[in-house]
Amino acid sequence: MVGHAFMGAAHSHGWRNAGRAFDLPLEPRLVAVAGTSAERTAAAARRLGWEESLTDWRELIERDDIDVIDICTPSDTHREIAVAALQAGKHVLCEKPLANSLDEAEEMAAAARSAAERGIWAMCGFTYRRQPAVALARELIQDGRLGEVRHVRLVYLQDWLSDESAEHSWRLDASRSGSGALGDLGSHAIDLAQWLIGDDVARLSARTTVFVDARPAPGANGTLRPVTVDDAAFVLAEFGSGVIGTIEATRYALGRKNALRFEINGSKGSVAWDLERNNELEFYEADGQPGTAGFTRVLTTDPSHPYLANWWPAGHTLGYDHAFVNQAADFVNAVAAGVQPEPSFDAAASVQRVLATVATSSGSGTWEVVA
Amino acid sequence: MVGHAFMGAAHSHGWRNAGRAFDLPLEPRLVAVAGTSAERTAAAARRLGWEESLTDWRELIERDDIDVIDICTPSDTHREIAVAALQAGKHVLCEKPLANSLDEAEEMAAAARSAAERGIWAMCGFTYRRQPAVALARELIQDGRLGEVRHVRLVYLQDWLSDESAEHSWRLDASRSGSGALGDLGSHAIDLAQWLIGDDVARLSARTTVFVDARPAPGANGTLRPVTVDDAAFVLAEFGSGVIGTIEATRYALGRKNALRFEINGSKGSVAWDLERNNELEFYEADGQPGTAGFTRVLTTDPSHPYLANWWPAGHTLGYDHAFVNQAADFVNAVAAGVQPEPSFDAAASVQRVLATVATSSGSGTWEVVA
Amino acid sequence: MVGHAFMGAAHSHGWRNAGRAFDLPLEPRLVAVAGTSAERTAAAARRLGWEESLTDWRELIERDDIDVIDICTPSDTHREIAVAALQAGKHVLCEKPLANSLDEAEEMAAAARSAAERGIWAMCGFTYRRQPAVALARELIQDGRLGEVRHVRLVYLQDWLSDESAEHSWRLDASRSGSGALGDLGSHAIDLAQWLIGDDVARLSARTTVFVDARPAPGANGTLRPVTVDDAAFVLAEFGSGVIGTIEATRYALGRKNALRFEINGSKGSVAWDLERNNELEFYEADGQPGTAGFTRVLTTDPSHPYLANWWPAGHTLGYDHAFVNQAADFVNAVAAGVQPEPSFDAAASVQRVLATVATSSGSGTWEVVA
Amino acid sequence: MVGHAFMGAAHSHGWRNAGRAFDLPLEPRLVAVAGTSAERTAAAARRLGWEESLTDWRELIERDDIDVIDICTPSDTHREIAVAALQAGKHVLCEKPLANSLDEAEEMAAAARSAAERGIWAMCGFTYRRQPAVALARELIQDGRLGEVRHVRLVYLQDWLSDESAEHSWRLDASRSGSGALGDLGSHAIDLAQWLIGDDVARLSARTTVFVDARPAPGANGTLRPVTVDDAAFVLAEFGSGVIGTIEATRYALGRKNALRFEINGSKGSVAWDLERNNELEFYEADGQPGTAGFTRVLTTDPSHPYLANWWPAGHTLGYDHAFVNQAADFVNAVAAGVQPEPSFDAAASVQRVLATVATSSGSGTWEVVA
Repeated sequence: MVGHAFMGAAHSHGWRNAGRAFDLPLEPRLVAVAGTSAERTAAAARRLGWEESLTDWRELIERDDIDVIDICTPSDTHREIAVAALQAGKHVLCEKPLANSLDEAEEMAAAARSAAERGIWAMCGFTYRRQPAVALARELIQDGRLGEVRHVRLVYLQDWLSDESAEHSWRLDASRSGSGALGDLGSHAIDLAQWLIGDDVARLSARTTVFVDARPAPGANGTLRPVTVDDAAFVLAEFGSGVIGTIEATRYALGRKNALRFEINGSKGSVAWDLERNNELEFYEADGQPGTAGFTRVLTTDPSHPYLANWWPAGHTLGYDHAFVNQAADFVNAVAAGVQPEPSFDAAASVQRVLATVATSSGSGTWEVVA
Repeated sequence: MVGHAFMGAAHSHGWRNAGRAFDLPLEPRLVAVAGTSAERTAAAARRLGWEESLTDWRELIERDDIDVIDICTPSDTHREIAVAALQAGKHVLCEKPLANSLDEAEEMAAAARSAAERGIWAMCGFTYRRQPAVALARELIQDGRLGEVRHVRLVYLQDWLSDESAEHSWRLDASRSGSGALGDLGSHAIDLAQWLIGDDVARLSARTTVFVDARPAPGANGTLRPVTVDDAAFVLAEFGSGVIGTIEATRYALGRKNALRFEINGSKGSVAWDLERNNELEFYEADGQPGTAGFTRVLTTDPSHPYLANWWPAGHTLGYDHAFVNQAADFVNAVAAGVQPEPSFDAAASVQRVLATVATSSGSGTWEVVA
Repeated sequence: MVGHAFMGAAHSHGWRNAGRAFDLPLEPRLVAVAGTSAERTAAAARRLGWEESLTDWRELIERDDIDVIDICTPSDTHREIAVAALQAGKHVLCEKPLANSLDEAEEMAAAARSAAERGIWAMCGFTYRRQPAVALARELIQDGRLGEVRHVRLVYLQDWLSDESAEHSWRLDASRSGSGALGDLGSHAIDLAQWLIGDDVARLSARTTVFVDARPAPGANGTLRPVTVDDAAFVLAEFGSGVIGTIEATRYALGRKNALRFEINGSKGSVAWDLERNNELEFYEADGQPGTAGFTRVLTTDPSHPYLANWWPAGHTLGYDHAFVNQAADFVNAVAAGVQPEPSFDAAASVQRVLATVATSSGSGTWEVVA
Repeated sequence: MVGHAFMGAAHSHGWRNAGRAFDLPLEPRLVAVAGTSAERTAAAARRLGWEESLTDWRELIERDDIDVIDICTPSDTHREIAVAALQAGKHVLCEKPLANSLDEAEEMAAAARSAAERGIWAMCGFTYRRQPAVALARELIQDGRLGEVRHVRLVYLQDWLSDESAEHSWRLDASRSGSGALGDLGSHAIDLAQWLIGDDVARLSARTTVFVDARPAPGANGTLRPVTVDDAAFVLAEFGSGVIGTIEATRYALGRKNALRFEINGSKGSVAWDLERNNELEFYEADGQPGTAGFTRVLTTDPSHPYLANWWPAGHTLGYDHAFVNQAADFVNAVAAGVQPEPSFDAAASVQRVLATVATSSGSGTWEVVA
């Protein structure tokens, strides 16, 4: 694993517990983690349960006893690590967003396609697909329970920048993070939208905005450093099939801590979800009985729900991190079976293509084709 | 109408609007209101839309141009007014609780039975039966959608006595109000429980309690006056059919303003409701599809829902006072058709019988038969 | 009153009850209602409580015993009736949207300004401003409790066209209704957005769409008639102050019956509301205590809340139609005091200007200035 | 660890992850698990991550490389294992309910007191104390934010016996499980009630009931086997301080999968919680501002909330099993520090004392003192 901050901890949790919840054909071993500081990486290895720590990710790639490279670093480093790992014959799990630019993403996707021909697999960590309620929503849509889909409505609301005195960080520096709320939050929303309805955004009109354009540099006595990424992004999207989608990502929705929400309306049914209540899917079905119609709060903890047969009895909730366990299990199962784990780099690159088109449209002020 | 405070205003709203929402066979006319103070009663008549005001309710009974006596006074006066009115051949709508004692209630019920033989009708104002969501719950139960009922769970939570410096009032004086939370709030819960499942409480174990036993007399420089009624009441009830019910009424549930809530669980389904969200009925149906099972939030504003064909299009909510319009319409329709309007005084007396048994059991500390 | 369908009934409810809930300086009298069919108008007059019925609205304007003209007809007739009434010295309450085109709206606003100089007042019926929770939200914003506003997020979701076999109606005919979801639902959302934050939309990018382009003509054996209005509309708006707003209106959000929702995020607080739960305002305040921070569900039934001192004690909910009573009372009070009742025709014309710009932008595919 | 079914899996999850989330002074090692079947125990060891498997729990106690015995077996075996382990100088974590009878529980508590003198510690697994929202509720109460507590209201609702054709199991056999809903669910509710307000039940009136008195024996062609435990239990409790509590436990609340709910009302504030929405605490504070008062939905995922500094950033939810990780960490920290881990066997025995008194009162039909 490369990187050991928030995402590194979440991925470690996934690898550590996947074989305990699922019957896996192969047992993940947490061999080594790479970081920049020897001391902090060693501490992280101990804390997160890795056998060794290193300060050069290239060493991970060179070792014969390592089969999988898990990339949990900031997105400006994804391309280099992923391409090198795939070329070296390592399976790759890479955190989202796939890259900081469409060029990088397409290079990564090409590397992944090439590796796939050799049975080497790459996957991108859009982990919310593995929340049971989200997976259930997709099942319902794929099974036709919503009929013809018309509306896709997503917001990803956080609030950690609402306070304008909050300090600057690498996430506000375009050269490191590529974009702001758009890539960090919007990428999740776009991936879910495309995956849930099984169709890609074809055209869009978008706008990104900045509410606070400079913030105190850490430890710099109040010196302001410019914010070079978006604070919020808004997208009106038309999918290939004619579905209309609205997508918003912001870090200024005061009081919303992690409100990734979607609602999808079809001709026969609707679904709605909120990550802050991740164990509940709201489902409406037009069944001709208006007297008892309404949104049903499905507590997605039944053994019949996606992933749940491997967890606790009905009524026992899962949290944010269970999706990382599910993700690790899915990855191991796919690699062991020699099939493409999803979302592939191609799927992640299609998200990147939408992100790039958002930037274009925000600049041009017009509708743009995603191509 | 006798009395013109909170209940008088709500009943006036009902009479005034019933013919506007419903096609009634007879049009209610707001002829005269009686009160104790000539000045205040006259002001109330103007404000509430009555043609005349009087200071002696007996005059209402003597007049030929008045067919209905609506009793909205404190419960210690109900018996005298209702019995006199019925004997004089006036139809009667009487606010709940029916009386302050079981003896009074039974005398009233006897008077009502006698009057009914002459085509004169009496009804008690348990108005929450006319909230559409509540009426829908009863329909579902009567239609067998819940299967065999096992649990009835009700609370009626208010908080206006939480502040122990709140002043004394007639509602805290047993000689005026009969009881406290028990009669005021508990009577509603008991009526709903019995009506919803169509069965009466047969045996019960109960407890009433007082949290603050004296309060400042109004305008008396802090002199404390004893509280002679219960602050809260708790009932464990067994119905004739074996259903188990729990009922709680309190004025000390801080933050709950008017939370009359029920949940009823049967072998095939469940319903739940909260007066603070009066337009929503939660309905669970065991239909063998665990993947999409859950409580459905039915927004009870569809024309197919009880009373709703007479109100607004689907999605347009009703409030607390619409039940008084529904009640007035039901009363007029029953009287015009010459059938017993429900809840009859017998039904209200059966509630009073439960209230009396609660007091007995609270004193004895044992289970008591409701008889 | 002109017109006696859904809106006529709602307005009648308002006029009939305003003086019963509020202490008004003038008592509304329901003199006469005008409609197209003599028979149906007479029936409506009886049902809704009007003294007389007429078949020519011009007669209403000519009568000396009528001071107020209440316009509840489809929007293609608003201009003619309103201008004539104002010129004749009648105060006017006109349903929304103000008109079917910006030209009409501006002519009406001009007529209203001219009439105002003579003490004749015009108001537009954006009645949701009178929902107590909405009025409370505005108070909080005006009092600075949200700090600097950044986001305004509104949707107005209905579903009555989801079924593609639903019949055609005048609402789907642009020559009658002007537009579809945009004018019918979007106008409410735009008015609330502008009123709540006290600022107007300055620039916007928008898109309207049609999901089902032809529907069965009523009683025509399945012959399809083209739908000439939008089924849904999407707006990304920038207000003069830099606030970013997203607005969506649709009749295809299956399961949402009347979900007019807003969420507004500022630098110090946020508010959120849903018309389907009209008695609740969610309020978040950043008060430096993260341990107990969260959205507070304010049950807006306290006497301290807007309009509530005139209704029931705390905890007793209001419904959709109470806003019409509040509206009638506000109108009477303003007229009696000789001050402009709000929303004025100017305010309503500013909504119309946004509607017109939405249409322009949807055609051009680019950002357009609201001017 | 003894036992490897549902609870064994949950406890294993706790031991495995405690050191990864928390900085522990001692690192738990999953040495050996004991079960009855060699084959199934070996499979469980592999699946749950234990180094060895055994078929005699006495071997665990005899080994020098094992310091802690974790008892996850049915409650009829708790006494023997726990007493033997404590006498052998092993620290003990024992699942709830502590025992099947008060005698057993008191023997265990005595053994624990004796062991504590030698620095050997025993704790009972009332794990819901470790749900962050529950721990926050206790903090608020202990900090006086609720003022004087008056009401404690708890229900623990499940529905897995609603279907009367569901098969018999050991949980319905009193000789194995001691009691039914009472011990299984009610014990949790009683422990939370006593812990949250820091006071014990002093007197109670209770009732247990059976809805379905015989069920098909598994694999026995429809032969019915008697149900010898309660299906539901109801308790009206008076605490030493005068607080009144109502407690209900049932397995027949159709649609409620795991609804352990409490609401506590004090003179200054209230809290409410539902295990099915475990990441949310509802908190009401009477702060003299009725205009914005209401229950605040606190998403208990902030680093300032109990346990959360060791988990994910604000907004990232926890599930059912995180409480087992928190529990393991608390146990390790207490043992390492040489202090009593809570809940002690004394605390658990006090719950057992209430359970026993519930049975007595249900039989006598009168109030009983808990002694």
